Amino acid sequence: MPSAPPVAVRWHDGAAGHLELLDQTLLPGRIVWLPCRDVETVVEAIQSLRVRGAPAIGIAGAYGLVVAAGEAIRAGLSPAAARDHLRGQAERLAEARPTAVNLRWAVERAAAVLDRCPSDAGPLPLAEALLAEAGAIHEEDARLCAAIGRHGAPLLPDGGVLTHCNTGCLATGGDGTALAVITTAWAQGRRLEVFADETRPLFQGARLTAWELVQRGIPVTVLVDAAAGQLLRSGRVGACIVGADRITARGDVANKIGTYPLAILARAHGVPFYVAAPSSTFDLRLDDGADIPIEERGAAEVLRPLGVPAAPDGARAYNPAFDVTPAHLVSGIVTERGVISPVTPERIRAMLEG
Amino acid sequence: MPSAPPVAVRWHDGAAGHLELLDQTLLPGRIVWLPCRDVETVVEAIQSLRVRGAPAIGIAGAYGLVVAAGEAIRAGLSPAAARDHLRGQAERLAEARPTAVNLRWAVERAAAVLDRCPSDAGPLPLAEALLAEAGAIHEEDARLCAAIGRHGAPLLPDGGVLTHCNTGCLATGGDGTALAVITTAWAQGRRLEVFADETRPLFQGARLTAWELVQRGIPVTVLVDAAAGQLLRSGRVGACIVGADRITARGDVANKIGTYPLAILARAHGVPFYVAAPSSTFDLRLDDGADIPIEERGAAEVLRPLGVPAAPDGARAYNPAFDVTPAHLVSGIVTERGVISPVTPERIRAMLEG
Repeated sequence: MPSAPPVAVRWHDGAAGHLELLDQTLLPGRIVWLPCRDVETVVEAIQSLRVRGAPAIGIAGAYGLVVAAGEAIRAGLSPAAARDHLRGQAERLAEARPTAVNLRWAVERAAAVLDRCPSDAGPLPLAEALLAEAGAIHEEDARLCAAIGRHGAPLLPDGGVLTHCNTGCLATGGDGTALAVITTAWAQGRRLEVFADETRPLFQGARLTAWELVQRGIPVTVLVDAAAGQLLRSGRVGACIVGADRITARGDVANKIGTYPLAILARAHGVPFYVAAPSSTFDLRLDDGADIPIEERGAAEVLRPLGVPAAPDGARAYNPAFDVTPAHLVSGIVTERGVISPVTPERIRAMLEG
Repeated sequence: MPSAPPVAVRWHDGAAGHLELLDQTLLPGRIVWLPCRDVETVVEAIQSLRVRGAPAIGIAGAYGLVVAAGEAIRAGLSPAAARDHLRGQAERLAEARPTAVNLRWAVERAAAVLDRCPSDAGPLPLAEALLAEAGAIHEEDARLCAAIGRHGAPLLPDGGVLTHCNTGCLATGGDGTALAVITTAWAQGRRLEVFADETRPLFQGARLTAWELVQRGIPVTVLVDAAAGQLLRSGRVGACIVGADRITARGDVANKIGTYPLAILARAHGVPFYVAAPSSTFDLRLDDGADIPIEERGAAEVLRPLGVPAAPDGARAYNPAFDVTPAHLVSGIVTERGVISPVTPERIRAMLEG
């Protein structure tokens, strides 16, 4: 096991090189880096959750455009053909998963460098420009994570903190969003008791969050998602904090399935419920969270946990990957710019425009 | 696959025979009957959830006393020694699991026949008397299930019904409690859409409820427990119905972990939340649900789902097997005597004493 925090995404060997993704479907049992030399592989990795977490898939999508430029280099495309190819692959990457808004945001930001390159630039200089931009997005995300951790840490009261899914190094380009708040508070000497929902169907809490925390030497207690009610009733939790895949103008939050029940429970027990996300997670074109497209995934994730058949043949599955938590259940949203609390359209706009 | 509803518990071959339990840990993949010729095996089966469901473990506990009498027969115990042995084993059986009250209720009811047997009765006549009583408890439970189904069926509105854990044939001596309400409504021609929470950590919803319903030809859709919030938000659920392991005098309900979050969500969405249980589930000595002992089970159920390691070494687990739903969240309690609604101490007492 590495003692440094794990990394989800890395670029290998210059503009004509390739993308490497830590295959998170194999964690914590095996550490395997997946080389991506074509966009097909990147899209499959995003759709299969080999790379996941809204900021991390945004970074992977941006690097995916460099991969697309590599395809253009190897195919010997003309400058015009290379641009056409890149624009088509940008759309394919941006559509790989529908709910998180960071993916489209990052791909479009990377693609925008094409407009700043001379029209006669061939595939290699385009690859160089795209790699510089993807790298900038990656580095910037690491800084955003650090800022989110700093802004959020003072919010956590002493005692237990409950989180859902994975929002750490594996989900971002840095230390994470919600998990960065927890690890920053810990690094400041606060002795929190961290509870991690296992996060069915794909166990990101048990597999990834617990793994990150164990590596950092922070004690972690895993629970099944359905045990959060009893845990909150026990009085051992002083705050809940989660990430986000998309946040609307009024503060409705799409996040991993199970977030909304947790927010309802937190409210019922008078426990603050925080969301931590970079500002690229906001989609100000939407107001009502009901308008966020919710990805429904395949039945096998539900019916065959970890690949083992649980349900009988003939059973169907309902498998939304995300749910929507209405703004009124969110005590505060921690961004890299500061904390939005209370969560109102006005305060959101002021923070994002400030 | 059998087409008749499955049976959880059966007695084999007369008073000197043995108990057979359908090993529910192996369902739905394998149908294996576990022969129980000593109390040790019965207790292990109850503690390992080879037999589970509050009414079914009560029935297994009652038959367990007949198994204890078989031990006395084979050991050639005197009448007095046989009674001592039976009283000791009765206590051991009654304590096998702490939360459900039906187990102690059934074991104590079976043990009470000892007082009605002549003091010089040897192990074989004691076994015969105990078998008659255990069989009576078993048959009576089947009748209670049928009555619960009849009383509850009219409560279910058209549309979706969501249930948690398993409360059917496998959990009782008959057609079930909450699941009997659903299957009775179905048999009456109501075309409900049944949603089954998978019910981590042991997947009783996916493994057992879905299996029972598929065998009955009733379509069933399985979801991860954390998806109940999104499902309820979608408006597709008209009622929730669950079983119970213990109900206090004021109507607080201990049931499988995850019941309480479901009740909170149902209330938030204006969806009625029903509990179905025989009157032996009530523990009128307790008023506040916080006084119900909640069994905490081993970490492996959480950290190794279906035996597959999910979490890293070093992660701890929080694994309460039950939670408590306060009475004010329960729209009605369906018993074999009728429906208690609203749930108040007065109405509970009136129904149980009526």
